[in-house]
Amino acid sequence: MILTVTLNTALDITYRVRSLRPRASHRVSQVTERPGGKGVNVARVLAALGHEVTLTGFAGGPTGELLREALAGTPGPVDALVPIAGATRRTVAVVDETAGDTTQLNEPGPQITPGEWGAFLDRYDDLLSGASAVALCGSLPPGVPVGAYAKLVRAARSAGIPVLLDTSGEPLRRGVAARPDIIKPNADELAELTGSHEPLRATQDARRRGAHAVVASFGADGLLAVTADGRWRAVPPAPELGNPTGAGDSAVAGLLSGLVEHLPWPDRLIRAVALSAATVRAPAAGEFDPAAYEKLLARVSVTAV
Amino acid sequence: MILTVTLNTALDITYRVRSLRPRASHRVSQVTERPGGKGVNVARVLAALGHEVTLTGFAGGPTGELLREALAGTPGPVDALVPIAGATRRTVAVVDETAGDTTQLNEPGPQITPGEWGAFLDRYDDLLSGASAVALCGSLPPGVPVGAYAKLVRAARSAGIPVLLDTSGEPLRRGVAARPDIIKPNADELAELTGSHEPLRATQDARRRGAHAVVASFGADGLLAVTADGRWRAVPPAPELGNPTGAGDSAVAGLLSGLVEHLPWPDRLIRAVALSAATVRAPAAGEFDPAAYEKLLARVSVTAV
Repeated sequence: MILTVTLNTALDITYRVRSLRPRASHRVSQVTERPGGKGVNVARVLAALGHEVTLTGFAGGPTGELLREALAGTPGPVDALVPIAGATRRTVAVVDETAGDTTQLNEPGPQITPGEWGAFLDRYDDLLSGASAVALCGSLPPGVPVGAYAKLVRAARSAGIPVLLDTSGEPLRRGVAARPDIIKPNADELAELTGSHEPLRATQDARRRGAHAVVASFGADGLLAVTADGRWRAVPPAPELGNPTGAGDSAVAGLLSGLVEHLPWPDRLIRAVALSAATVRAPAAGEFDPAAYEKLLARVSVTAV
Repeated sequence: MILTVTLNTALDITYRVRSLRPRASHRVSQVTERPGGKGVNVARVLAALGHEVTLTGFAGGPTGELLREALAGTPGPVDALVPIAGATRRTVAVVDETAGDTTQLNEPGPQITPGEWGAFLDRYDDLLSGASAVALCGSLPPGVPVGAYAKLVRAARSAGIPVLLDTSGEPLRRGVAARPDIIKPNADELAELTGSHEPLRATQDARRRGAHAVVASFGADGLLAVTADGRWRAVPPAPELGNPTGAGDSAVAGLLSGLVEHLPWPDRLIRAVALSAATVRAPAAGEFDPAAYEKLLARVSVTAV
């Protein structure tokens, strides 16, 4: 079983409007809701790839109930979320049908009490015993210590379980120092971590900070991986038109599935780039187009750098 | 008791962001939720003015539960909402802290079944027997017949109860023909109903379509009333800076409270304009500033036209 951790789960709401204009009043033509948060997206993609997945983190309030009902209603990841008194946050994606772009509004997340954090740590230890790999994903809700990911990385490594960390800011800085197996920063997160905007230099620098492998994502320019086995760049055949929401989470699912299947690094990177591009191409945000994925697998180029 | 009807109630959510930029991702710094929909706002203001108020309409789903819990937790209107299987809609107001303006996103509302509409009609008939006046407010959710307000106006008039209608589009056009005591269109609604953008001509034309009195609202330019007793313009002392959300609902509450207190028309209009301006000035959308209201009462000018 692969375990994904999403401490700041979300109810992802998508609004379609004719055209988003600041200061105007808009009639929303279509409302969709689905379980969200980076680790939830990673779990959904892993399940679609045929892996057994369990997801944990926090859920509470009416939004948390909706999220858990939606998870229970579909085959896929096993729900091991820890209940909290606060309400799971919402995110609102406003899709402008005329411009074809998306504006994102993210609530900060509920306050987590020390008791709830303790309950999560117990659950995490229990779940680790059955896990083949762990993904730690996304932002921390208020009340969770900033060193949370460092602690979770150390626990996984003590248990001998490979761990991937995908977060940003100070939680990433502290988590990297605990020596995770893989980190997957995007260009902004990498620059914030290292102070460098030069891709190869910044990726190498991130690895020196403690990560065993760094896979940096650069949108349509693909992935750059610096590992103990070598350095590669993996690039999609062409920039994809569509919605990039969740493309990074699909890349994480590709890397993690490749890891537990013991694929060589170049194949993991091909899978991650193909999933990422197939996610941009899918009509719904955070889903991937399986037919596009299969075709893209043969068309991603990987080169040693 | 004054009865307010809100067929399309809402959970009003307000997001504060640093600056709203289309295509960007925004961290929401503050989230507030409160019961909404025009008739709910009218009921809240009437209760603050010391009137006994009952509110009805539809509520359902997790959003409807939140709405009803919030109503139960505060003194004020009595909740006589009819339960439905669908979920009460949300509205999202995005406040741009830098520009000081608001962008509004309104969900369409839940599907109402014929059985639910029938249950509402029974409830409405029961409530009419104890009502001194009725306000019919806002849009119709999917499934409610477009002639709904015409039916509700006729029922109130048959029972001898004065009825105010505040809606737009085809529901207004049909409702007006059923001869409500008062309609309160804003400039856009008035122009849509009559085809005229000339305030006095359009207001008179709206009255000829069936309303006994028309009170048209023109934002900072105040109210224009055409009634059987005369025609007046009521103007606030100065344009108010602030959030105009709910200002029209406060005007409705002013007109309705003045009606049940048997105030002469000029005093009703002064009250409506003062409440409206005090709502724009209040820090929270849809609330009014009681101290500002008391001061404004002496400073609104009314002239016969």
